[in-house]
Amino acid sequence: MRKILIIGAGKSSSYLIKYLLDKSSTENLHITIGDLNIDNAKKLVTTDKNVSVVHLDVFNGDSRTKAIKKADIVISMLPARFHIEAAKDCIKYAKHMVTASYVSEEMQALDEEVKANNLVFMNEIGVDPGIDHMSAMQVIDHIRDNGGKMILFESFTGGLVAPESDNNLWNYKFTWNPRNVVTAGQGGAAKFLQENQFKYIPYNRLFRRTEFLEIDNYGRFEAYANRDSLKYQNVYGLEHIKTLYRGTMRRVGFSRAWNVFVQLGMTDDSYTIDDSENMSYRNFVNAFLPYSPTDSVELKFRHALKIDQDDIVWDKFLELDIFSSTKMVELKKATPAQILQKILMDSWTLSQDDKDMIVMYHKFGYERNGEQYQIDSTMVVVGEDQTYTAMAKTVGLPVAIAALDILNGKIKTPGVQIPITKEVYSPILEELKEYGIQFTEKEVEYLGYNPLNR
Amino acid sequence: MRKILIIGAGKSSSYLIKYLLDKSSTENLHITIGDLNIDNAKKLVTTDKNVSVVHLDVFNGDSRTKAIKKADIVISMLPARFHIEAAKDCIKYAKHMVTASYVSEEMQALDEEVKANNLVFMNEIGVDPGIDHMSAMQVIDHIRDNGGKMILFESFTGGLVAPESDNNLWNYKFTWNPRNVVTAGQGGAAKFLQENQFKYIPYNRLFRRTEFLEIDNYGRFEAYANRDSLKYQNVYGLEHIKTLYRGTMRRVGFSRAWNVFVQLGMTDDSYTIDDSENMSYRNFVNAFLPYSPTDSVELKFRHALKIDQDDIVWDKFLELDIFSSTKMVELKKATPAQILQKILMDSWTLSQDDKDMIVMYHKFGYERNGEQYQIDSTMVVVGEDQTYTAMAKTVGLPVAIAALDILNGKIKTPGVQIPITKEVYSPILEELKEYGIQFTEKEVEYLGYNPLNR
Repeated sequence: MRKILIIGAGKSSSYLIKYLLDKSSTENLHITIGDLNIDNAKKLVTTDKNVSVVHLDVFNGDSRTKAIKKADIVISMLPARFHIEAAKDCIKYAKHMVTASYVSEEMQALDEEVKANNLVFMNEIGVDPGIDHMSAMQVIDHIRDNGGKMILFESFTGGLVAPESDNNLWNYKFTWNPRNVVTAGQGGAAKFLQENQFKYIPYNRLFRRTEFLEIDNYGRFEAYANRDSLKYQNVYGLEHIKTLYRGTMRRVGFSRAWNVFVQLGMTDDSYTIDDSENMSYRNFVNAFLPYSPTDSVELKFRHALKIDQDDIVWDKFLELDIFSSTKMVELKKATPAQILQKILMDSWTLSQDDKDMIVMYHKFGYERNGEQYQIDSTMVVVGEDQTYTAMAKTVGLPVAIAALDILNGKIKTPGVQIPITKEVYSPILEELKEYGIQFTEKEVEYLGYNPLNR
Repeated sequence: MRKILIIGAGKSSSYLIKYLLDKSSTENLHITIGDLNIDNAKKLVTTDKNVSVVHLDVFNGDSRTKAIKKADIVISMLPARFHIEAAKDCIKYAKHMVTASYVSEEMQALDEEVKANNLVFMNEIGVDPGIDHMSAMQVIDHIRDNGGKMILFESFTGGLVAPESDNNLWNYKFTWNPRNVVTAGQGGAAKFLQENQFKYIPYNRLFRRTEFLEIDNYGRFEAYANRDSLKYQNVYGLEHIKTLYRGTMRRVGFSRAWNVFVQLGMTDDSYTIDDSENMSYRNFVNAFLPYSPTDSVELKFRHALKIDQDDIVWDKFLELDIFSSTKMVELKKATPAQILQKILMDSWTLSQDDKDMIVMYHKFGYERNGEQYQIDSTMVVVGEDQTYTAMAKTVGLPVAIAALDILNGKIKTPGVQIPITKEVYSPILEELKEYGIQFTEKEVEYLGYNPLNR
C-alpha cells in the first residue's frame, strides 16, 4: 500500500478525496485525512475502505511528525502560511509534498534540500494558480516548438455562479472567500504591459478599465486587471513579450456597479467605523455621504455617483437592500469592508441547490515567418452541487492527479516547483479531460491593440 | 545676558532670528544659531551684535551637549524627528525648550521629567499647528466663559500665493514642502463629525467634497477635509460637539483639477515607475492611460476624466505642459508622486519677487440660553519677499515670542505642552497683532447644515 496523507479537509477537498478513494484499490493506496475537525473530514469520505480520518493539529509537532513519518506523500490543503512546518518534516523524513498554494519565500528556500533528497515539492497546482500555468505553458511550448515567437499573452480567470443559478442583477455570488472579493485590487496599482508600454491603473480606476471577453455558449464576460500581471513573465520565459496582462473575470456590468462601492470608500479595510454595531445598512451608506437634514440617502448616493434613476446600476443597489433602515450591521468595531461583506452575503450566498462555475480565458499572440497569429483558449467548468463545486473540482483534481503521478514516478524531477514543465502538465492536463476539465482552442485573427485592424 | 540657542536655521527661521535680534539689546539676549550649514544661518543674521553662528550637528552628542549647556532656552527648528536628543539634553541640564512641531510620542513621554525639573517644553507653536490652536482656544474659552456651549467648530488653513503674485490658472504655487502637497490626503480616509454623524471620505473622493469659504477683500476659497479632524476634540474640550471639521484651503477650482491627478494615480508614492529616467512628461501621463496606436494622449486623458475641451480645467493641464514630449522626467526609479512633483515645480515654484500668503478661517457655533450663534474668525498674512515669507512670519514669530515669554516668566506652567491655555495664548496673540498677525471676528447667523435655513 502507498500511503497518502491529506492535511486539511476544507471546502476544496471533496474531489481530491473522491478521486483518491476511487483509485485506492486499483492503485493500491491508503488515504489518511488529518484535520482539526474530524466531522468535516468524515462528511467527505463515502467509504471506509483504504481510508482513515485522524485528528491532526499541524502546530502540534509530535502528532504532525508521527503522521508525516507514516506517509509516502503529503498533500497540504491548509492555508499557505501553514505549510512550512509540514514541509520541513517532509524533508526530514524524505516525503514528497503537494500544495495548491503560491510558493512562499520560506518554501522556495527549501529547494536545495528538496533536490538533495530527490523529492518533489509540487505547488500552485490548483486552478489559479494551477490549471492556468499548465494550460498556458502547454500552448506556449507548442508555439515555440513550431518556431513561433510569443508577442502577446493575456490570461483571465473567474469564479462565478453557473448560468442555471445566475438569478441576481449582479450575475454574481460568493463561490470562494468573500473577503478576498471585497478587498480585491487593493494594496497598490495594477501594472501590466501593452505593446511594450508599462501601464498602471490605480485602485480607484481598476473597475472602469475592464476588457470584454466572449465564450461560445456562455456569452459575454468582462475582466479587470490583476495587480501582478508581470509576476510570471520570467517563469514562463516571456521576457521579450509586448503585451502581458492577467485579469479577473466577471459578468458584464459587475465592475461598473462595484466601482460605486470603491468610489464611496465602502471597500476600505484599513480603519474601523465608529459604533458600527448599532448602525443600520442605511446609516452605513450615509456615513460616506455628506450630511443633510432633508436630502434622502438615496438621492445623495445617486448624486455623488451621477446615477440616473433608470440606470440598471441603480437597481443593483436596491436589490442588495443597502438603504434598509431596519437591517442592522451588528458587527462591533468593523471596517467598511467587513460591513459591506456582511451586506453582500445576505444576497450573494449560494443556496443549497446553486451551482458555481469556473471560467478561464487565455489569449496567445505570436509571430512566425513574419506573420502574426493568435490562439484563444477557453475553459468552463460547472459545479454539481454545494459539495462537489467547480472550485473544488478544478483545485482538487490537479492536486490529486499530481500526487498520484509523483507516487507512480511519472513526475520525478526533484525540487520545489510549479507545474510549468511538460513532464508535469502533459499527463495532468490529459487526465483532467476525462473529468470534463478541458480547453477549447480557436485560431483567431491577431488584432493586437489596433482598432483599425478590427 | 540670557542665552538662546536656535538649532536649525532653515526657511522658516528668518522672522524668528530677526525678532530675537531686534529685542536682544532691550531684553539682554545673546542668540546662538547652530546649523550644519553655517552659510545658511549667516544669511539670516543682519548684525554681529549679541549673536554667534556655530556649526552644530544635532547627532554629534559632544557638540550638541556643549551648546545646550551654555543656553538658557533651546529653540529647535529641525524637522520633528530630530528634536528628541536635544530634548533629553534640555532635561539633563534644566533648559526650557520650544518647537513648532507636533508632539511626538517620545516627546510626550518626557512630560513627567520636564515637570519634575520645573521646565517648559512648548510645542506646536508655529502657524498650523500653533496660531490655529491659540486663536481657536481664545474664542472657545470666551464663549464658555460667557455661558455658551460649543456645537460646531470648523477650522481651515492654507499656505497659498499672495493675490499680487497669483498668476497661474491653478491659483497656487509651492510655498512650503512640495512633497507634502503632492501626497496630501493619502494614507487613510478623512474622518469628521457633521451634526453628530461620523463621516468618512476616501482619498479618491476627498477633492470632490470641498466646502466654500469667503474672506472679505480676498474672495472665495475652497477647503478639503484633513484626515485628522477629531485629533484635538478632547484637547480642546469639545467632547459633546456636533460638528467638528478641519480642512486645507485652496483657491476655488484647485481641487477639481487636482482630483484628475488623484484619479489617474499620478500622486501615488508607493511604487516606482519603470524606466522613469527616460520618460517624457507625455510618456508619464500616458502610462496611466490605455494603450492606443492612434488616439492621442490628450484625447485619452480627456475621455478618461470626461473633460470637455472648453472646460477651464483642461487649460490648467495645458499650462503645466504635462503633454510635452520633449521635457524629460530625468528622475531614476521615481514614484508617480515624485515625477508629478517635478513637473509641478516647473510651474509652481515661487520666483524671486513672488509673495506667499497664509489664510486661516475658523467657524465657532454655540448655544446660549436656547439660542444658536456663530462667530467666523479669519486671518490673512501676506509675505514680504522670498526670505521674509508669510510662512516664516507665522511660524517664527509665535516661536520667538513664546521663547521670550518663557525666559521672562510670563509662561511658567511646566510640562510638555501645546499653546491652548490662556497663560500662553493671551500674551502671544496680543503681541502678534503688532506684527499684523490678527484675526477678524464676525458674528454671523448660525446656519448649521440645514439648507432650508439659508
